Amino acid sequence: MQRGAIDGAAATVGPEVADAELAVVCAPVDRIADLVQQLQAVLPPTSVVTDAGSTKQSIVARVGAAAGRAEFVGGHPLAGSHRDGPEAADARLFVDRVCVVTPSESNTAKAVERVRTFWESLGMSVHTMSPAAHDEVLARTSHLPHVAAFALALSVEEADLPLTASGFRDATRLAASRPALWSAILHENRDAVLKAVDRYLERLAALREAIDEEDAVRLENLLHDAKRIRDRLGDQLGAPSGGTRL
Amino acid sequence: MQRGAIDGAAATVGPEVADAELAVVCAPVDRIADLVQQLQAVLPPTSVVTDAGSTKQSIVARVGAAAGRAEFVGGHPLAGSHRDGPEAADARLFVDRVCVVTPSESNTAKAVERVRTFWESLGMSVHTMSPAAHDEVLARTSHLPHVAAFALALSVEEADLPLTASGFRDATRLAASRPALWSAILHENRDAVLKAVDRYLERLAALREAIDEEDAVRLENLLHDAKRIRDRLGDQLGAPSGGTRL
Repeated sequence: MQRGAIDGAAATVGPEVADAELAVVCAPVDRIADLVQQLQAVLPPTSVVTDAGSTKQSIVARVGAAAGRAEFVGGHPLAGSHRDGPEAADARLFVDRVCVVTPSESNTAKAVERVRTFWESLGMSVHTMSPAAHDEVLARTSHLPHVAAFALALSVEEADLPLTASGFRDATRLAASRPALWSAILHENRDAVLKAVDRYLERLAALREAIDEEDAVRLENLLHDAKRIRDRLGDQLGAPSGGTRL
Repeated sequence: MQRGAIDGAAATVGPEVADAELAVVCAPVDRIADLVQQLQAVLPPTSVVTDAGSTKQSIVARVGAAAGRAEFVGGHPLAGSHRDGPEAADARLFVDRVCVVTPSESNTAKAVERVRTFWESLGMSVHTMSPAAHDEVLARTSHLPHVAAFALALSVEEADLPLTASGFRDATRLAASRPALWSAILHENRDAVLKAVDRYLERLAALREAIDEEDAVRLENLLHDAKRIRDRLGDQLGAPSGGTRL
């Protein structure tokens, strides 16, 4: 409020939001469905509610179809960082990044369009897919990298830290994320996350075996396959060969 | 040569380097020992040879003690990137970063000091330890993160790439490294790398189990432990709380 970024703040959802045409719920994933339903209780049926949660299927299912109430359309802007609070605010956070919007069968085209237009007005490219498809892909592209980074940070001794360089720093950056937030995400998307982790364990086992058996040809082939995939993303955010625009 | 960065280039080690006081071998780790021995054959015994390889024990052992020849003192500047070639040159690459120097029992204090002074003149903090201790720590802080990043890149479908954000990009950056270079490093430091990978697999198994068993308390505790370690490195290279200065 001191910065003029918001007009008001309240600890609960009350009548003061009753004239909102669009409400965006930004909260830990295990609290979103509740907040959506509290909003639906005070908003007119012509309003639309969306969210910014990293999981979609369980939230969309929990909210359900609420006939005669403001529609909920799930969303997930693929932008953010491990930092939080107003100090970490970034006016260009969403520019040229991707937002996934996950309509359910009960959504009207009009409500989906309103949510799409909102994220596009912030500079995002909007990609539409089912909640289940979203959770399956994001388990691999976001939830798994978090698990991998947490495990990597747990694999060093504190005494090792002076002998880390930028590689370790980048590879573990996601481990600085908020534990409560990520515990909830990994829980909400449990099945898809376990599938992605198992897939990762298989790839690690293949690399381990090639190292163990001193099979240089197989090892180098695996590293080439990995590099080929990673190279498609390019070096920089905002200037990718395939990573942030659809 | 066009840029004036070097005075000459040759494909082999010949008499043209015979007046060098200090020779720094920068090559894939499996080629370093040979090149050091070729240099020792042409340099006077008062010269010193060092290297920039990511593994030390096998190189130091292979070079051996060469009485009456230029001394070899192993080194490893912890700075670099996944990019290579003159286009990727960076005059400040070594500033405020750590270099590990790994003297063997046959090295004189004078030769070690010459190598230390060289890296310090480029702005580095020099840390001295045994080749074996270096390989043990670097397996955890550098070689393992590469294995983890290669496996992570192998765990996504190409069709997933548009739905990646900066987290995936950072977590997999090391997978863009040169396959031949890293195949050799993982081979040369095989025992320590396998130990680090096994440690990592244990941490992943613990996280997987907590997710699978929906043990939110245990999961959040693990994530907290990981975050505590990662937070000690701070956000930025060059302004760390413990990562690049000793």
